[in-house]
Amino acid sequence: MSDPFELLKARYGAGQPLPAVAADRLNPVLETLFAHRSVRDYRPDPLPPDTLDLLVAAAQSAPSSSNLQVWSVVAIEDAARRARFAELVGNQKQVREAPLFLAWLVDLSRLRRIAAERGRELAGIDYLDTFLMGVIDAALAAQNVVNAAESLGLGTVYIGALRNEPEAVAAELGIAPGDGVYAVFGLCVGYPDATKPASVKPRLPQTSVLYRERYAPAPVQEEVAGYDAAMHAFYTSQGLPPNLWSEHSVARLRTPADLKGRHRLREALAALGFALR
Amino acid sequence: MSDPFELLKARYGAGQPLPAVAADRLNPVLETLFAHRSVRDYRPDPLPPDTLDLLVAAAQSAPSSSNLQVWSVVAIEDAARRARFAELVGNQKQVREAPLFLAWLVDLSRLRRIAAERGRELAGIDYLDTFLMGVIDAALAAQNVVNAAESLGLGTVYIGALRNEPEAVAAELGIAPGDGVYAVFGLCVGYPDATKPASVKPRLPQTSVLYRERYAPAPVQEEVAGYDAAMHAFYTSQGLPPNLWSEHSVARLRTPADLKGRHRLREALAALGFALR
Repeated sequence: MSDPFELLKARYGAGQPLPAVAADRLNPVLETLFAHRSVRDYRPDPLPPDTLDLLVAAAQSAPSSSNLQVWSVVAIEDAARRARFAELVGNQKQVREAPLFLAWLVDLSRLRRIAAERGRELAGIDYLDTFLMGVIDAALAAQNVVNAAESLGLGTVYIGALRNEPEAVAAELGIAPGDGVYAVFGLCVGYPDATKPASVKPRLPQTSVLYRERYAPAPVQEEVAGYDAAMHAFYTSQGLPPNLWSEHSVARLRTPADLKGRHRLREALAALGFALR
Repeated sequence: MSDPFELLKARYGAGQPLPAVAADRLNPVLETLFAHRSVRDYRPDPLPPDTLDLLVAAAQSAPSSSNLQVWSVVAIEDAARRARFAELVGNQKQVREAPLFLAWLVDLSRLRRIAAERGRELAGIDYLDTFLMGVIDAALAAQNVVNAAESLGLGTVYIGALRNEPEAVAAELGIAPGDGVYAVFGLCVGYPDATKPASVKPRLPQTSVLYRERYAPAPVQEEVAGYDAAMHAFYTSQGLPPNLWSEHSVARLRTPADLKGRHRLREALAALGFALR
């Protein structure tokens, strides 16, 4: 399915309004973006040797706030170590099976070491905004890697559960408490298993996420009713149990326990050296 | 300059090691990624009418944590409103001059409204991790827009200074205090002014951001000395005052006042309805 209009139909799902897009405006970049799907079934094949160089060049081509580059990435290829990370993220098999697992780091340590070496004050680093800069820098870099990998025929999936056990993940990565380094999410990269193809997942209609000039949401039933129906049809088409997105999504955040350890994030970040003033 | 190897040379700057990349591995997506530069000089020309549809379809094609889609975007095209946003971000002329300014929102309000309508508990939403999910979702979506826009011949630049005055920005966008909606960064989109071309900016060498298996940084001088030289050469080539990246970067975070209002972020987020437990 590489017809971009078919991809857009899949992106918005059954019965939902489609964006008005002229065929002559499409190009290979847009087609790659529209074709994105999260891949959870991988072949064990190793990646060509220059893949990581290409992916990191793509990551570094993403914008960085004030060019501070307050991120780093750890490439984990060793099978035994991938298996340990798979356990740390709730036993997700794709972390064990994909040949490359990338741990994306908010990294304030580089600037701290520069400041320390030069005897410079760096009090601004201890604020929540500086942490956010690192999170955003890492996310922009990682998303370039997703697009680069997919252009090379590879699949990807983010692993947010890398935040479930921050201290254990830090120890496994060799990050010392107090360093100002935090693994904010993971990313699996590998060849998709063609026998278990992943599907483009429908999203909310554009009218539910895009506002003109001012933020003015419609009544919630208007925003999500059509999408609940589209997701119900999607799950049924995949042979999965029927599921209302709106119900499922609020259940995901019902209690602190539903955060699977992430309700401890502030405490964990303090131990890792983020003051978050 | 569309030769990808020339782009990579520019990306790593004078005298820095280049990644080992085979020519037959390059493709239009990688070329678009490698060619990225932040554009601050725009022509006033309006965008074709389907541009926003295309960009938002690209944004929604990015991954979303647990498919919660806790982000929204406000498209600001009105010239008088762009001028007000330009003032709110420290009088950045590109916000006034580019025909489209996108304000990217962490948006927990949609799920809150669903939960309220259905009488469901939603205690998990008040944690720092849920806010981070919104920040990451918004960043992945926005980076897809950067890549989509550049594939269409447009230029972009992120505006992190949208965080300088969060309450005033919220008021201008029509976001009520307590809503759980926060404008986390802006993005200008428009046609680059060819008479003032932007350059690819050099980044740290791959060895300074990429670690294998474990996080193990080299002594800081090894990590940044070559890059300081490359950036010095870059600034000189642009007719700009010579500048050491390492000095400039730690100065950017010297004191809370250097954050230009962003040291107040925690307080501002509390007022906007983010408990950040």
